[in-house]
Amino acid sequence: MPADALSSALLPAGLHDVLPSEAAHEAAAVERLLAEFAAQGYRRVDPPLVEFEENLLSGPGAAMSKQTFRLMDPHSQRMMAVRADITPQIARIATTRLKNEARPLRLCYAGQVLRVKGSQLRPERQFTQVGVELIGALEAEADAEVVLLAVQALTAIGVPHLSVDLCVPTMVSRICAGLGLGEEEIRQLRGALDRKDAAAVAAVGGPAATLLESLMSASGPADRAMQALAALPLPEGAEKDRRRLTDTLALLRAAMPDLTVTVDLVEHRGFEYQTGLSFTLFSRAAGELGQGGRYRAGAQGEDRGEPATGFTLYMDTLLRAVPAAKAPGRVYVPHGSGWESARRLRAEGWVTVAGLAPVGDAAAEAKRLQCGHWLAGGDVKPVG
Amino acid sequence: MPADALSSALLPAGLHDVLPSEAAHEAAAVERLLAEFAAQGYRRVDPPLVEFEENLLSGPGAAMSKQTFRLMDPHSQRMMAVRADITPQIARIATTRLKNEARPLRLCYAGQVLRVKGSQLRPERQFTQVGVELIGALEAEADAEVVLLAVQALTAIGVPHLSVDLCVPTMVSRICAGLGLGEEEIRQLRGALDRKDAAAVAAVGGPAATLLESLMSASGPADRAMQALAALPLPEGAEKDRRRLTDTLALLRAAMPDLTVTVDLVEHRGFEYQTGLSFTLFSRAAGELGQGGRYRAGAQGEDRGEPATGFTLYMDTLLRAVPAAKAPGRVYVPHGSGWESARRLRAEGWVTVAGLAPVGDAAAEAKRLQCGHWLAGGDVKPVG
Repeated sequence: MPADALSSALLPAGLHDVLPSEAAHEAAAVERLLAEFAAQGYRRVDPPLVEFEENLLSGPGAAMSKQTFRLMDPHSQRMMAVRADITPQIARIATTRLKNEARPLRLCYAGQVLRVKGSQLRPERQFTQVGVELIGALEAEADAEVVLLAVQALTAIGVPHLSVDLCVPTMVSRICAGLGLGEEEIRQLRGALDRKDAAAVAAVGGPAATLLESLMSASGPADRAMQALAALPLPEGAEKDRRRLTDTLALLRAAMPDLTVTVDLVEHRGFEYQTGLSFTLFSRAAGELGQGGRYRAGAQGEDRGEPATGFTLYMDTLLRAVPAAKAPGRVYVPHGSGWESARRLRAEGWVTVAGLAPVGDAAAEAKRLQCGHWLAGGDVKPVG
Repeated sequence: MPADALSSALLPAGLHDVLPSEAAHEAAAVERLLAEFAAQGYRRVDPPLVEFEENLLSGPGAAMSKQTFRLMDPHSQRMMAVRADITPQIARIATTRLKNEARPLRLCYAGQVLRVKGSQLRPERQFTQVGVELIGALEAEADAEVVLLAVQALTAIGVPHLSVDLCVPTMVSRICAGLGLGEEEIRQLRGALDRKDAAAVAAVGGPAATLLESLMSASGPADRAMQALAALPLPEGAEKDRRRLTDTLALLRAAMPDLTVTVDLVEHRGFEYQTGLSFTLFSRAAGELGQGGRYRAGAQGEDRGEPATGFTLYMDTLLRAVPAAKAPGRVYVPHGSGWESARRLRAEGWVTVAGLAPVGDAAAEAKRLQCGHWLAGGDVKPVG
């Protein structure tokens, strides 16, 4: 929602009142998404808006430190933080309160997050995150499940022209490490790859240059990309990433043959804390709708914590891609018609708007109150 | 949810993780309440979690000042406040962004609020508020509409043994002022009435003593209370309150003859900012579920701003009174059963839990994953 002059005077930048039709639209979409998650066994949890800073910003949460508002807790005299991301909270719940629940553990959530600064792409400082986490499963089947679930849920709420971009953000570092490149060279290469700068990749790539250039040019529609990738000689560590990509894609194809899938073999940005197969969800109409991928729940580093994957959807972008449901018809029920007659209309699916005092022209009053119909005698009549 | 040892170590006092079954229970109840509000023409708005302090804590919002966390906004360099109550935000939206919408304006909301301290009665520092505001209507029909809507919505989510306690928190001051008592005497009388201390009322009541004692002893079941009230000689200002109480009760009786209604003629606590007919919603099982009443939206004082009424429900108390819906059956779908067979089961209303790898004993695996059933060949079988 673009801030109008009035709201920008009243509210801090990046914070908005969500007004009637849009608020209902968002609420309906969130509930439908959560219903899709629940239907596949994902159970809802609701962590609090605020936690102790040291818990919320440890491990993967540390990435959001600069984006996080702090509050002093007068009760404990400790600093608290307002969540800027819900994912670390779900990982915390899974690895503490629910650590004795059977694995894989399937959890989902919806809630508000608050950030210190908006970005150019997303000026909002508060938005609704909706997502799932699948904790304790290492299989490619788990990677495929969360991608398919995201696609299924987004399709259910009416997102058109959906596509999934798969990546394995660890692959480039594994290739470089396998070919003996040092940390500083890898960092420089990352920059060049992020800019899709083939000349710079060639210049600093050393023994990895040819391979990385091939990865860059192979990125695109999934089948072509995987064919090109299959022909490349990869060091051992990266071979694991290639196998996971191949297996996951096969599972996606088997479940949803018509899904548009692309593969980006050098993608890295936005996946700094991912440890394996990752993905971005796109709609041609609205751009990026959300992202997800593998991480370690409960601790950082590849061999610590529990294997986990999941995704987060950003409702602000997403709603731009989704048509609002048709609102049910509004009937003006004139003063004195009685509670029971209004109740009957609601049971038939109407929204009733009660007249609180007698009026001369009920049809005109209905129109003034944005009702398309009014109750005349016992009949619902359209407004003139 | 009582904090267990683990959560109290992890989270600040009064803040909780809402765990699976409870989170779904709350979400379903909130959505059902909002659907009931929407069916009577109340449209949802979602104000932000955070606003400029000077806006959020002006007017009726000032009451929550000590309960409100502050944040510095690095963008504007102004202080922001985390909402401790949603009602003032809805009044702000109605009188600014929606000031040109037709009156009466019907709005509803659901959201989280955060408070600096819990109370003895409600140790939680974060909870969900759900409510409605009816703005721009002076009629008794408006008072009755919000009471009836609250009752209807609470009944729809299964609250048993519901009762409504009506009061007019302005009546005592109007009686005292009408009989010439000063501010200090009124303040002392308020204290005595709050303690239901008849002796103190007699001692400090002066010319109002007899009348106030009659009001105290008349409080109780509505019909008896109203009969007693009708016989009392009231000063002019209080006469208006009596008439409103009588008219509203008559409207409630006409719509819901079986509703349990009590009247408290001296109630005042918790209604400091109310300017007319007010009410508390009770369930025998869970106690106080919410409250509401008349106020002035957009400004304080009886003759400023717009006339408004509404109510707020507290989900934490409320859920204790409401049985959770039966969860749909969970079916374990063994590895290799295929996406399509799981999809078919979901279409039949099952929750599907996919096996991510082959297992020897599918029935045992189903049980381990809290599924009551598993898919064997094409058939859903109960677990052992």
